[in-house]
Amino acid sequence: MSYNSFGRVFRFTSWGESHGPALGAVVDGCPPGLALSEAMIQPWLDKRRPGTSRFTTQRQEPDQVRILSGVFEGRTTGTPISLMIENVDQRSKDYSEVATAYRPGHADYAYDAKYGFRDYRGGGRSSARETAARVAAGAVARAVIPEVRLSAYLVELGGDPIDRAAFDAAAIAANPFFCPDPAAAARWEAIVDGARKAGSSVGAIVECVAEGVPAGWGAPLYAKLDSELAAGLMSINAVKGVEIGDGFAAARLTGETNADPMRPGADGPVFLANHAGGIAGGIATGQPVVVRCALKPTSSILTPVPTITRAGEASEIRTKGRHDPCVGIRAVPVVEAMVALVLADAKLLHRAQCPDRRAEG
Amino acid sequence: MSYNSFGRVFRFTSWGESHGPALGAVVDGCPPGLALSEAMIQPWLDKRRPGTSRFTTQRQEPDQVRILSGVFEGRTTGTPISLMIENVDQRSKDYSEVATAYRPGHADYAYDAKYGFRDYRGGGRSSARETAARVAAGAVARAVIPEVRLSAYLVELGGDPIDRAAFDAAAIAANPFFCPDPAAAARWEAIVDGARKAGSSVGAIVECVAEGVPAGWGAPLYAKLDSELAAGLMSINAVKGVEIGDGFAAARLTGETNADPMRPGADGPVFLANHAGGIAGGIATGQPVVVRCALKPTSSILTPVPTITRAGEASEIRTKGRHDPCVGIRAVPVVEAMVALVLADAKLLHRAQCPDRRAEG
Amino acid sequence: MSYNSFGRVFRFTSWGESHGPALGAVVDGCPPGLALSEAMIQPWLDKRRPGTSRFTTQRQEPDQVRILSGVFEGRTTGTPISLMIENVDQRSKDYSEVATAYRPGHADYAYDAKYGFRDYRGGGRSSARETAARVAAGAVARAVIPEVRLSAYLVELGGDPIDRAAFDAAAIAANPFFCPDPAAAARWEAIVDGARKAGSSVGAIVECVAEGVPAGWGAPLYAKLDSELAAGLMSINAVKGVEIGDGFAAARLTGETNADPMRPGADGPVFLANHAGGIAGGIATGQPVVVRCALKPTSSILTPVPTITRAGEASEIRTKGRHDPCVGIRAVPVVEAMVALVLADAKLLHRAQCPDRRAEG
Amino acid sequence: MSYNSFGRVFRFTSWGESHGPALGAVVDGCPPGLALSEAMIQPWLDKRRPGTSRFTTQRQEPDQVRILSGVFEGRTTGTPISLMIENVDQRSKDYSEVATAYRPGHADYAYDAKYGFRDYRGGGRSSARETAARVAAGAVARAVIPEVRLSAYLVELGGDPIDRAAFDAAAIAANPFFCPDPAAAARWEAIVDGARKAGSSVGAIVECVAEGVPAGWGAPLYAKLDSELAAGLMSINAVKGVEIGDGFAAARLTGETNADPMRPGADGPVFLANHAGGIAGGIATGQPVVVRCALKPTSSILTPVPTITRAGEASEIRTKGRHDPCVGIRAVPVVEAMVALVLADAKLLHRAQCPDRRAEG
Repeated sequence: MSYNSFGRVFRFTSWGESHGPALGAVVDGCPPGLALSEAMIQPWLDKRRPGTSRFTTQRQEPDQVRILSGVFEGRTTGTPISLMIENVDQRSKDYSEVATAYRPGHADYAYDAKYGFRDYRGGGRSSARETAARVAAGAVARAVIPEVRLSAYLVELGGDPIDRAAFDAAAIAANPFFCPDPAAAARWEAIVDGARKAGSSVGAIVECVAEGVPAGWGAPLYAKLDSELAAGLMSINAVKGVEIGDGFAAARLTGETNADPMRPGADGPVFLANHAGGIAGGIATGQPVVVRCALKPTSSILTPVPTITRAGEASEIRTKGRHDPCVGIRAVPVVEAMVALVLADAKLLHRAQCPDRRAEG
Repeated sequence: MSYNSFGRVFRFTSWGESHGPALGAVVDGCPPGLALSEAMIQPWLDKRRPGTSRFTTQRQEPDQVRILSGVFEGRTTGTPISLMIENVDQRSKDYSEVATAYRPGHADYAYDAKYGFRDYRGGGRSSARETAARVAAGAVARAVIPEVRLSAYLVELGGDPIDRAAFDAAAIAANPFFCPDPAAAARWEAIVDGARKAGSSVGAIVECVAEGVPAGWGAPLYAKLDSELAAGLMSINAVKGVEIGDGFAAARLTGETNADPMRPGADGPVFLANHAGGIAGGIATGQPVVVRCALKPTSSILTPVPTITRAGEASEIRTKGRHDPCVGIRAVPVVEAMVALVLADAKLLHRAQCPDRRAEG
Repeated sequence: MSYNSFGRVFRFTSWGESHGPALGAVVDGCPPGLALSEAMIQPWLDKRRPGTSRFTTQRQEPDQVRILSGVFEGRTTGTPISLMIENVDQRSKDYSEVATAYRPGHADYAYDAKYGFRDYRGGGRSSARETAARVAAGAVARAVIPEVRLSAYLVELGGDPIDRAAFDAAAIAANPFFCPDPAAAARWEAIVDGARKAGSSVGAIVECVAEGVPAGWGAPLYAKLDSELAAGLMSINAVKGVEIGDGFAAARLTGETNADPMRPGADGPVFLANHAGGIAGGIATGQPVVVRCALKPTSSILTPVPTITRAGEASEIRTKGRHDPCVGIRAVPVVEAMVALVLADAKLLHRAQCPDRRAEG
Repeated sequence: MSYNSFGRVFRFTSWGESHGPALGAVVDGCPPGLALSEAMIQPWLDKRRPGTSRFTTQRQEPDQVRILSGVFEGRTTGTPISLMIENVDQRSKDYSEVATAYRPGHADYAYDAKYGFRDYRGGGRSSARETAARVAAGAVARAVIPEVRLSAYLVELGGDPIDRAAFDAAAIAANPFFCPDPAAAARWEAIVDGARKAGSSVGAIVECVAEGVPAGWGAPLYAKLDSELAAGLMSINAVKGVEIGDGFAAARLTGETNADPMRPGADGPVFLANHAGGIAGGIATGQPVVVRCALKPTSSILTPVPTITRAGEASEIRTKGRHDPCVGIRAVPVVEAMVALVLADAKLLHRAQCPDRRAEG
């Protein structure tokens, strides 16, 4: 089982380091005949791209994707789709101190402990730059699941939640925070500016809703849809928690208050609530799939933190250089991509086993 | 990729339904030469066994495990270990109503939507009885990781959290709730009794700590230790959320307050905090691995809930029969087993790639 | 990746030793709604069963299969199908000498070298008894591919080939050798009797033809249909070679003599030859899939062979006990089962990626 | 399970088409700290490179490999190694006829039947150009198994076998046929020249011997070393048969003549024969691993062959353009690479499960 691959029958393998010549992904198992072009992938990369506002890192990366295989005359051929993004703005000199001392909260020490040494430039493989490969692969996944509408956004930043009553889907694209509540977005400007100026950082919570997922996707017991979503989201840099539907709040409900009663409808059952987040027994119910994940504050801060050197001596470290004051912001398109990847795989896996798909029609 | 298998090189496959003749697991990839016997597995099953207190379902199952292969003269041979548990107390008549109407919150509708029909007796494959197979497999995993000490317990029940200051590891085995806070355990008696008598149910939060995990286990990027834990725990019945270390609370911290500073120590670094829950970049740091998961209240309640029949007509359903008023309680040994299974796999995967394991001491 | 599982989306895991209490297989990923019963599996096991003629081992095993899960009211549910066969006729005393000395040609030394010790009773896990589990799983696979007609038979025994001109499909079931040429079958009686009486053994070549495989099954490049068949057949005890279509003989042809010209037909192309054995580029062409495998002579012989003991000292060994003088005979139903298992997986994998299956008609 | 990946813990994924911009492989699971550079990979690609003699295709491809990730300061980091080779000499006009008619013996029809359409330029994904990616990945595998010495060569071409008595390892690199018998090499010149001038083609048989494989590698039952080798070799273009040790010839031996007797030796057992090809029960015995595969004659020939068009009409086709008159020649380094890839995976898999490896020391 490879370490850098994700998915079962719709599967991608990512590769690349922060300061290597390029990074990319190979998407395997994509159905043939789907329209696909670099122009269809690029907009999703642009959403995740650094340097687009003062609230993200100032590293300048065009993140131009190239399709190297698997597409012929504008359509997928069913063979592996190789996607490559060149790294352009690697300033290795910014990271020299990291070579000798471990940044707490980063993967530096753990990589050394595991591998004996590491590519310390910009975090190497553990850099969030790798998520560009996921976003590119996610764009292919979207082509596989045209029936699904995805929307991810921030619901909390720096401990300040949105007002659910003020939810405005149109607002998400209108501010640099993917925030559905314009008033919260305004407050968050001050929070992120404050963190940035103080050389500090803040955390965030991302929510993603997938509408149009047919009842039946997901395969119990160890390919449960919620289990796959949890694995996919927890693999994103800085994610420390994942929940489905009401998630942790469900632990405080009773059987009655947590029930999702059903009523007959024209196109299958109508649910009167969605505490379950659209998944029961690991299988989609046809309701919107709702997932949230928590991102810790960026570990790179200007405040000195006690640490040790590679030689095991006491030291302290301030992480200079270009960083996101809130990694949760740019994680939004990454979360959406991972949900797309999980759903594309679930769709193909479902039709492998249950071809008639009576519940989908 | 099979649906009912979990793990990469230490891998188990579970099978069985609630009311079939038996259930079990096949554990593959176990190292040879480890002492293993039915007597070593049985105590873990006994912890999960139903009917041991008035706070759990009254279904009577001895849950006697048999080892059918893979062990010779008391030691593992390296070949697949087949574990079987016979079902004894199947009262199929209790479940007949379920055949025609869907229980909201259960997998009934989703299974029908996916497969076209289902084994409705006791929830069939979606029953929590399957977790007995995980607990048995988990006992094998424990033999693979003797360096690790595992402890799982409830930290919240029915919205009532323990007092962390009153944490007493010795108390966990001394009450029917796996509760480390005796005062909370006393309060929970009333809560569960109340739910049971009312035909209602409550949720809970389980925490598991693994001490002794060597720095280096876990394999980025898509076999990250936290990602595997999330997948494993989210596959347990009724789990709706998973978090590592500070989890969702980390989203409310700053880079400074979330840092885990390091100091030199005699046996590698000493960490001054463990917000990260023992995992950085998907790799164990040598600190205790800390994971929590939220379990929704049991969906089986006596209050009638609106639903639909298989034929699509409006109905309502009360779930009679024998149920756990709080599935979170018996989930505790299951969580511990899943963590053991994830760690055993991570250990073997690590030594496949990094055999010298210099960081393991 | 588990060691004892085979297949990708239709996948089985086998377990069990020659002299343990039982052996079995868990079949995962089977589509729901297929008719399945023990009575549908048993006839295939009976074909492989020992002791049915004087030409096979005299071990008496009824090989009664039990379905322990995954079937409800006579139909598959889509959940794992657990199949178990109890061992009945274990005479461990026959095998005691094997505990201390290695039988050349057997897996004894290799297992010890790998695992440090082994279950030496009857060959333990390396015994051909395991193939009963494959035959049972293969019976499930047959239910998945009703469009395919399988036929396996011996084409050579002890170096004596059949006469292709005398091929009579009806003869296969009419002699104890699965031989399609009655005259060859008559000759083989003498060959096997001679080997048996001399305490010697002979090899054989099995051929399997699958008709009705739709064009399109098989997935390049590393799930090629021929590659999967080769893996599956080479995993059968005593198999030392596998070939597709003309196989090794194709290496002696020219491009012209090896060509399979095509002509238009009513239901797709008509091929004027089938040197390719029904597979091109790893994908079925719609022609019959033809595969052959070579089985070495049984390694268990009465002639003393020089060997070493576990302690590394020179010795010699004669393998007493009950053995097949030609393992190739009872391998015939096993080969058929493995081909069924490969094709069932290829079918599901194909429809995962290419759902419309326009080429399937 | 992805289609274009091979291996379990040491795993590569290949991508690319004959006439796309590039092709490549991602190698995952490589141990850290191994010396690796483009200069270490290039010589193996040069052995497989087209256009080096008049006996191979005249397509001019420098096959320059680039390492895009996973190597830092000259050593592997344990993260995915991305290898890319740009296509330079794509003359798409040579292949235009192929777009509308199917070349018998090629994958053209099968790809169309499976995927609905295909990249017809130079065979697209089914072109043997993909094997360059395997050779590059194989060079990484070699770094993982320094204890193993690999040697592949042709033992038969156009039906003309070498004289085993004349075997000269030094001759292999001294002629354009990787032929260990100089006299045979001289005869083969005429055979290949004749085929080339006639627009015809011939088949060949490749043998590969791996010395130094420690007893214990290989994992029964479905990751058997011989099964993995068979899968790997059968996935190479034009391979129609695979055999281990005596292979098909073993089917003509008796138990006595096929035995590999053992004697005590200074470093473990000494075998007095190697009919088994170094593998028993799927596990390496410590003897040389011997494998052979048969390659059909190139399907591209100048003689017109009856075929059908995409529209289903009768036609005939001559395959003009640049082709290898014997694909078996350039398959030699590919076979060696696949064996290296299988053995690297088997080594890591073995130490995952059996870390002490007492039999290896």
